[in-house]
Order: sequence, then structure tokens, then C-alpha cells
Amino acid sequence: MGAGAGAAVATATAQSAQGAASAYPFFGAHQAGITTPVQDHLHFASFDMMARTTLDDLVELLQDWSYAASRMTQGLEVSATGAVGGSPEAPPDDTGEAQGLAANGLTITFGFGPTLFEDADGTDRYGLAARRPTALQPLPAFLGDDLDPNTTGGDLCIQACADDPQVAVHAIRNLSRIAFGRARLRWSQLGYGKTSRTSADQQTPRNLFGFKDGTANILADDAAALDEHVWAAASDDQAWMAGGSFLVARKIAMLIETWDRVRLAEQERITGRDKGEGAPLSGGVEATDPDFAATDAAGAAAIDAHSHVRLVHPDFNGGVRILRRGYNYVDGNNALGRLDAGLFFLAYQRSPEQFIGLQRALSTDLMAEYVRHVGSGIWAIPPGASTGSYVGAGLFT
Amino acid sequence: MGAGAGAAVATATAQSAQGAASAYPFFGAHQAGITTPVQDHLHFASFDMMARTTLDDLVELLQDWSYAASRMTQGLEVSATGAVGGSPEAPPDDTGEAQGLAANGLTITFGFGPTLFEDADGTDRYGLAARRPTALQPLPAFLGDDLDPNTTGGDLCIQACADDPQVAVHAIRNLSRIAFGRARLRWSQLGYGKTSRTSADQQTPRNLFGFKDGTANILADDAAALDEHVWAAASDDQAWMAGGSFLVARKIAMLIETWDRVRLAEQERITGRDKGEGAPLSGGVEATDPDFAATDAAGAAAIDAHSHVRLVHPDFNGGVRILRRGYNYVDGNNALGRLDAGLFFLAYQRSPEQFIGLQRALSTDLMAEYVRHVGSGIWAIPPGASTGSYVGAGLFT
Repeated sequence: MGAGAGAAVATATAQSAQGAASAYPFFGAHQAGITTPVQDHLHFASFDMMARTTLDDLVELLQDWSYAASRMTQGLEVSATGAVGGSPEAPPDDTGEAQGLAANGLTITFGFGPTLFEDADGTDRYGLAARRPTALQPLPAFLGDDLDPNTTGGDLCIQACADDPQVAVHAIRNLSRIAFGRARLRWSQLGYGKTSRTSADQQTPRNLFGFKDGTANILADDAAALDEHVWAAASDDQAWMAGGSFLVARKIAMLIETWDRVRLAEQERITGRDKGEGAPLSGGVEATDPDFAATDAAGAAAIDAHSHVRLVHPDFNGGVRILRRGYNYVDGNNALGRLDAGLFFLAYQRSPEQFIGLQRALSTDLMAEYVRHVGSGIWAIPPGASTGSYVGAGLFT
Repeated sequence: MGAGAGAAVATATAQSAQGAASAYPFFGAHQAGITTPVQDHLHFASFDMMARTTLDDLVELLQDWSYAASRMTQGLEVSATGAVGGSPEAPPDDTGEAQGLAANGLTITFGFGPTLFEDADGTDRYGLAARRPTALQPLPAFLGDDLDPNTTGGDLCIQACADDPQVAVHAIRNLSRIAFGRARLRWSQLGYGKTSRTSADQQTPRNLFGFKDGTANILADDAAALDEHVWAAASDDQAWMAGGSFLVARKIAMLIETWDRVRLAEQERITGRDKGEGAPLSGGVEATDPDFAATDAAGAAAIDAHSHVRLVHPDFNGGVRILRRGYNYVDGNNALGRLDAGLFFLAYQRSPEQFIGLQRALSTDLMAEYVRHVGSGIWAIPPGASTGSYVGAGLFT
């Protein structure tokens, strides 16, 4: 049985008030980076195991990654010798660009993709097929998908979040380097500015459509909601996943220039909230619950039945909720001079069915005209490692 | 005569201590964003004027851009009605994603490329050829150039720097939108983490090779060095450029994985400084002047004659210095799983000859094996606008 399985829910907490000096524990019942207050910057990376690697290679990689992550999240270099403490006649262990920088709230979260358990040919690559969570399947196709294989899938994923982008990039770079000969980077994505909050102290940020996003997110201090909607339990399926979760990533390109030409009233109708305050169109302030029965002066629904806020609302989705911690992304611009930008959606849930149901509910979303899903991935997020152990140990015991 | 020409050198100063609330004046003798303490984030954009635009279109665009920039740099929306204050039946003036965010030290710096004065066919597009600074020519080819036309050149440039990436991106997005029908975005680049400092208060940051960079940069309080090396004077060439400067941008891809396999002693030999402290290999601390005559125990030069620090040192370049304010960039990864990352080099100088001489001196740089110049541009940076006027007004009077 892996580390932390069945342990009581514990929320990762900063050793100090948020800021450059924040350092979150790496070891614990859950991996950090899920309920951790959303940091300012993201570097997300997907990896594929290389051909002819063995189960031992996979285990050793996870051990090496966990060791390095346990150091970097505390503001330390990747090894004791680091960037300059080794032999001058050898390449340094640490690439060095984070020397002098504190932990900056760095969290490093690891996940296992469906292809780690069974590749496209149905091969049980590492003898893990019997331990595969039943729900860990490639996501179904959704209406409007326009997925690029270069930003989709992967055997393993790492989510690095920090309040300094150099710290997040340093983490992914050094973990990629540690993987040399065992796993290679398949794709990666930088993000910034967060589009969700997971702590009541955090202001609701705005997405690139200019609207507040994440108002109704599950917060880190809502233990009951986390147990119901986010953390896998031993009774769910695979006992080794207890205390873990399932991560869905979606790279959602936003048709910024088109959106910017939509009149304000229509932008608000599509969203179901007003743009300034973020209040539901049924009235009140940002925190007010939407009243889907409310009507306007003309007798029409105040909140359109196909608005984004209504389609994903728990009341119309059997009470389903997810924990979102996505980021804005801007990858420069395309050949037409349009910003190549959008939302890198990241959501944690107890079962992928939660995301699948919500995404299907969005098939009639008024907002669909202005977004394209161009990347996708799903990973089982194992529970946290116990001190001195490694992430995912429970899968191998 | 344009705004600010011939005025005394004045350093842009923050209205408050650095932080989210910092706001730098937009109007002044010089444009902000040159000597301003380097902010944490960059969004740089290059624009081309559209076909069949007139001189009036160009002037109006610069007026509209200056008005919007004068507001956004003070933490205001792009217009008085902004994101939600206009008619609900019209698209909002402001895209809205920076609502609730302070100025975050935003500076917006505008420049004119050689092609604004004369296109590739030799056409004097706007009747400005006689006002062209003689030195504003496309950069010559350098040894090892591997320039992508999609990240090279442009009629106009805008450098937006801020301590919050959302604020910098919001600025470029809204200025692109204002340009609709007159100029279109040609290419853009995000950067973070700064690789230079322009203020003695700032720590010397590290580049993606893990070394401190910018130790010997010109600082904002060194008025004599700024006058000698950075600010154009009325007597230089075109009087309208007095108080302005010349910007060279180079997108320098760094072969990260190759570098990371180089032994520490060789990394230090190539750089000419040690990796931990940043001291010259002739000894001392970071701030110690390099002693190029010093020898090691074996009698060899302590600082290699082809090290980066020696080749660009003013002592070997006729005293030439430049003001650098570059940023690290990470654009995800390439198809081989290698990080697509490097340095977005930005340097301000009184004449482009300063950069050209230094870059030629680097033709035998030991570091050349590990970098590729993949993008490039040069722009004349007009002086600052006087209150109520616009950037570049002097070019048109």
C-alpha cells in the first residue's frame, strides 16, 4: 500500500505567509499543487517513457524525480552538489538558473497517463494493467474538439507551479534532464496569471475574455467537498489511488479578436455573469448564487439557458463539481497576426466522469463559438509520498 | 521639433516603491522602459503598417497608441468607458482582463523600423525618407545567424514591460486592437525573469545557462554613461531623434540540453566568470573588474581570450557600452522534446554601430556553439512625448 493512502485529508499549508519565501511540504497524504493556493506561474510537461524501458526504469525514475522534487520545493538545488558544488570536470547536477531564488511556493505534482498502463497496441508495457484505475481511459471525443497530437496525451505528467516563472521552468528543465534515457518530454505548456482560486483569500482572477473565472470553485478549506468531489477513496476502484485524484488538462484556444468584437451585452449573455462585478445576471454580487428562474423586464430568463454559467452549474449536473486551477497562456501570435492565446484548463476530480459530464453539458454552450479545444490529457494523480518514499510507490507494491 | 528633444536627461522614477502599485510617468524627455528598473515580464510586439495606409493613418495611429499607453501605464483602462462603461450594445473599448489590476510598473515603448521609411522596393511609403536616421538600416548578417523571417523586422515595435504578465499582455492586445485596419501584428514575444538590471538596487539575475548576466550593464543613475552611450543627441544625425535611442532585439535560442552536458570548468571558461558568484575568473567578487592579464597556476590566461566576458568588454571594443534589458523566454519545446528557450536580447544604444561592433567581436565567442540567433530587429526609439502630445511627433513636424 502506497504512502498516504487512507490517511486523513490534510491541506498543504505554506510555512510562511505567501510570498517569495513560501515553501510547501513535498511529502504528505496528498500531493501538493492541488489544494495549494494557486501560484502565479505554471510550467506543465507531458512525458513519454522511452522504448525498451523496464518497470525498474520507471520506478527509479519516479524515485529520482521525487527526490529532486522534495529538494526543489524547499528552495534547494536538485542535489547536494547542485550547480557549482560538484567536480569542475563534470557537468553540474543542477542547471543553476534558480541559484539565489527561494522556493517561491513551488509545487511539483506527478501523474500517470492511460498509455503507461497499456499502449495503443494494447500492450501491458510494465505489467501494470491489473492496477489500472478503470476510469483512467483516454477522454472521449467532444463536439468541437480540434486536438493537436503534439499537445495531447502522454505517459506521465508533471505540473510545476510557482510564484516565479524561473523557478517553475527550472523544475521542469531539471526533471526532464533527470529523465534522460528513460523518458522524454512530449509537450509542455507555460501559463501565467491563474484563472482560478483555491483559497478564499485569493481574489477571483480574470480570464482572457475579461471575465472573472472560478467564482464557484472548490476551495482548499472545504474538506467535505474535497472528499466528495476531488480525492479518490480506497473503495473507489484501485486502493493505491486513495488520497489521489484525476487530472484533466485541456488547452483551450480562445478566439480573442472575434470575442473582442462582440457587444458587451452579448458577452454577458454568453457568460451568464456581468463583466464588471462578476455577478450572475439574475442580480446581486459576485458571490450571489445564480437564480436561474429569474426573469428580466421582458419576461425572458435573466440567465440564458445556454449560458456558460448555467450549463456547468451543479444544479443541472447532478451536483457534480470539480477543482479547477487553470492558467492563461499566450504563445505569441499566429501567421494572421492574431494572439495565440487562451486557457490552459486544469481540473482535479475524484473521477474523470465528472469532467466528461460537464464537458458534454457544454455541447450547446453559447461560448463554444469563441473557443477551440486544441490539446488534451488525462492522468491519474497518485496520493502524496510519505517522507523518504516516492510518488506512486503504492502502484508498485 | 518633437517633444523632449534636447531636454535634460531625466530618469523615470516610480511614484511609489516598486511593487504592484508602481506607476511610471508616460510623458517625459525620454520614453519610459529604457532606464526604468527592469520589470519582471515582457510582451514585445512588432507591427507592419497595412497596404494603402497614408501618413495621416500613421500619425493617427501613433496618437491613438500614445493616448491609450498614457492611460494604461497609470493603471487605467484604455479609454474612459473601458471594459464595462460603454453602451451594452457595442463591443467594449477595453478587453477587460486587467480590470482590478494596478499599473504593476507598466511601461510601453514605441519604435520605428527601417521599413517605415523605405520598403524593400525602395519606396518612400510615407514621405519620411529624408527624416530617416542614417544609421537606421537593416542589421548586417552576422556569422552564425539563422534568422526566421517570422520573428524578424517590422515597421513599428512596442515593448511592454510590467511586473504582472497579464498587464503586459493586456497592453499589447489592446494596442493591437487599436491598430485595426492600420497596422497588423507581425510577431510577438513573451519573456520573463529579466536577464539584466538597470538599477543598482536590483540583484543581477541569471540567464538560462545558469550564469549571472548583466553585471556590467549601464545603470539608470549613470547620467554620463547614458549621454555617451544610450541617448541620441540633436547633433548626431536627425534632430528629431534627440533624447531617443536605437533598439536592437535579438531572439537568441540557447541549446540548453547541450550546454547542460558541458563540464562546469568549461562552462566557466566559455563565460569568463564563475558560475556561483559571477566573479571574473581572474578573481574577486561579482563587482570586481576582470583582469585580463592575470594568469593561472599553469601560466595560462585566467580569462580565456575567446571568453564571452572578454570579447564584449569595453576595453577591447573602443570603450563601447550598451544598455541591455533582455528577458529569458521559454516557448514550450520542439519536436525532439528539447526546450525551445533562450534569451530575448534587447539593447538600447545611441547608435546601432555599438551593437554591430560588439556582435562582430563575438565572431570567435566560445559560447557561439551553444546559441543561435533566430530573430532580429532594429528600431529607432523616438524621445518621450510631452504631455498631451504623442510619441514620435517630432518626426512629422
